[in-house]
Amino acid sequence: MDRRSFLKTATVGGAAASTLAAPAIAQGKRTLTMVTSWGRGLAGVHDSAQRCADMITEVTDGQLTVELKAAGELVGGFEVFDAVSSGQADMYHAADYYFLGQHPAYAFFTAVPFGMTPSELTTWYYQDGGMELHDELGQIFGLKSFIAGNTGAQAGGWFRKRIESAEDFNGLKFRMPGLGGRVLTELGASVQALPGSEVYQALSSGAIDGTEWIGPWADEAAGFQEITKTYYTAGYHEPGAALSLATNRDVFESLTPAHQRAIQIVAAEVHEWTLTLFLSRNSAALQRLIGAGVEVLEFPNDVWDAFGEATVKVLSENMSDDLYKKVYDSATTSRNNTSGWLTISSGAFTAQRDRIFG
Amino acid sequence: MDRRSFLKTATVGGAAASTLAAPAIAQGKRTLTMVTSWGRGLAGVHDSAQRCADMITEVTDGQLTVELKAAGELVGGFEVFDAVSSGQADMYHAADYYFLGQHPAYAFFTAVPFGMTPSELTTWYYQDGGMELHDELGQIFGLKSFIAGNTGAQAGGWFRKRIESAEDFNGLKFRMPGLGGRVLTELGASVQALPGSEVYQALSSGAIDGTEWIGPWADEAAGFQEITKTYYTAGYHEPGAALSLATNRDVFESLTPAHQRAIQIVAAEVHEWTLTLFLSRNSAALQRLIGAGVEVLEFPNDVWDAFGEATVKVLSENMSDDLYKKVYDSATTSRNNTSGWLTISSGAFTAQRDRIFG
Repeated sequence: MDRRSFLKTATVGGAAASTLAAPAIAQGKRTLTMVTSWGRGLAGVHDSAQRCADMITEVTDGQLTVELKAAGELVGGFEVFDAVSSGQADMYHAADYYFLGQHPAYAFFTAVPFGMTPSELTTWYYQDGGMELHDELGQIFGLKSFIAGNTGAQAGGWFRKRIESAEDFNGLKFRMPGLGGRVLTELGASVQALPGSEVYQALSSGAIDGTEWIGPWADEAAGFQEITKTYYTAGYHEPGAALSLATNRDVFESLTPAHQRAIQIVAAEVHEWTLTLFLSRNSAALQRLIGAGVEVLEFPNDVWDAFGEATVKVLSENMSDDLYKKVYDSATTSRNNTSGWLTISSGAFTAQRDRIFG
Repeated sequence: MDRRSFLKTATVGGAAASTLAAPAIAQGKRTLTMVTSWGRGLAGVHDSAQRCADMITEVTDGQLTVELKAAGELVGGFEVFDAVSSGQADMYHAADYYFLGQHPAYAFFTAVPFGMTPSELTTWYYQDGGMELHDELGQIFGLKSFIAGNTGAQAGGWFRKRIESAEDFNGLKFRMPGLGGRVLTELGASVQALPGSEVYQALSSGAIDGTEWIGPWADEAAGFQEITKTYYTAGYHEPGAALSLATNRDVFESLTPAHQRAIQIVAAEVHEWTLTLFLSRNSAALQRLIGAGVEVLEFPNDVWDAFGEATVKVLSENMSDDLYKKVYDSATTSRNNTSGWLTISSGAFTAQRDRIFG
């Protein structure tokens, strides 16, 4: 973590507060600029941002009209956090684990290694304190954030050659953001967190040896199968990666309660809609990838063990930060609770359904 | 199925169309009456209906103010469908499988035996044609319906004595609505579909020998543990039971596009919120039930096999109805697609997480 960036950004967000709200409220209709981390049209994630913009506009009858700027159109994909924190833009749609430099606890609002499935995450977020902790983080940076999208469990990724043991990660140049990337660093990999728009070129040119992106549908759209055929489906790093919709906090507080509620409700709707979009598209895409000669593989158990061992170390690294520890403890308690019930209910059901109907 | 009830209701809904909308639109603010199948305060399900009412009211800034009437306050719990279809009330919140007498395809919009988990259901509903089919059903009865709640996988239920084999269902008086109940009929049970408000009394008096209701949290609140200690957690009958919010179609069509969108978005938000409410509360409730002496059991494999065999028969019963077959085919295709991907991604991940971290 870069503590100076953390403090600087917080100050900028605070300073911007007093200069923003008044002129914008004067008009009856109001245009909000949304910046995103996604290249225009990027499968699934850009769709998710676009749906946030469209639904907020529709449900407020255009009283809030949200205009979406894709990555690079106003600011770069990784600059959206500072742009909204400072008031340069009104909202961003992104994955909050891109902003670990601002605060490491943001990892939990996308995904952490061996973390939560989408149902576990939403249970924590909507019922067990997750949303309130997201808000506590947002107060530091002048943001009002809600989760607003989920990719589902992400695929392990694309490699130039097979992973036979954990040693194969030693020296590997791999693209993976978030704490998942930190785990690979523990295994000796040289990890980069490129925005989506730059990954194809990096893999194609050999600047990286491999990459994870999202899953079969988005990966196929990105075209990685043109570069390598070695694909691992299950991954340890993002068992249900949430996307976030964050609004400049002064802008948010200047809205009517009805419009504030509209943003919150739309974010929740888009979370589920986006998850189902990925779940719907992945199976068919995987079949097409297999048809195009892609080899679908699983990491061996001892590689999973190495991921697990490194994860314990990485997740414990920021425990001296009180807010990180608070988020970690809250998320862990909730997940253990939810997964316990899911195992003996949904899990037991699915096992019987598979046993009987195959 | 009762075809006469089906036709009669459709006609009533149609006749009501022309008399409703005009006077209501004249006012700037509009009060909508929501009836429900739930007794006031019934854990989880009444909360879900109340959240629909509150969120629609808040997000429209009271332009639509929804007033909730619990079961029995305006009409009985099972009469809400006809009340909204005929225009006596504006909206209902219920489980659509209560209305198999109106049309058997409604089963799929709550749950069918060995059917869909919540993620599979929402993927079908939001991406693979489920919502459009719900609407096609609604057109017959003058309703505009959205799923708006989910209990998650329901528990197998409470029994006066243990189930050792499928023969133990022969002659058993059991409360279970929907096609799940039809499956038990195949095993010789005498099945009743009592509304939630009447179940405790029926079990307590011996009018029934057992009941399923929802899961540990709602079951504990209903108090079944005071009557018997024999509890089966996993069930075949409702692997993710959706609740529905249905609006009289003429009322819905008289609303502005923004208000129509508000109802749709709120329904989706409440679907996820309700699911997480149950997931959050079930583990702790189960521990309390165990503390109170409840025995937590699993049905033996050969009982599951009998459930499976009867399910194949029951699901095939209405195939001569074109719309039922269309819904069945759509749901089945989507589920196979989604579950295929979930098994090799989320399923493989969860298995590794359990193996490594227990």
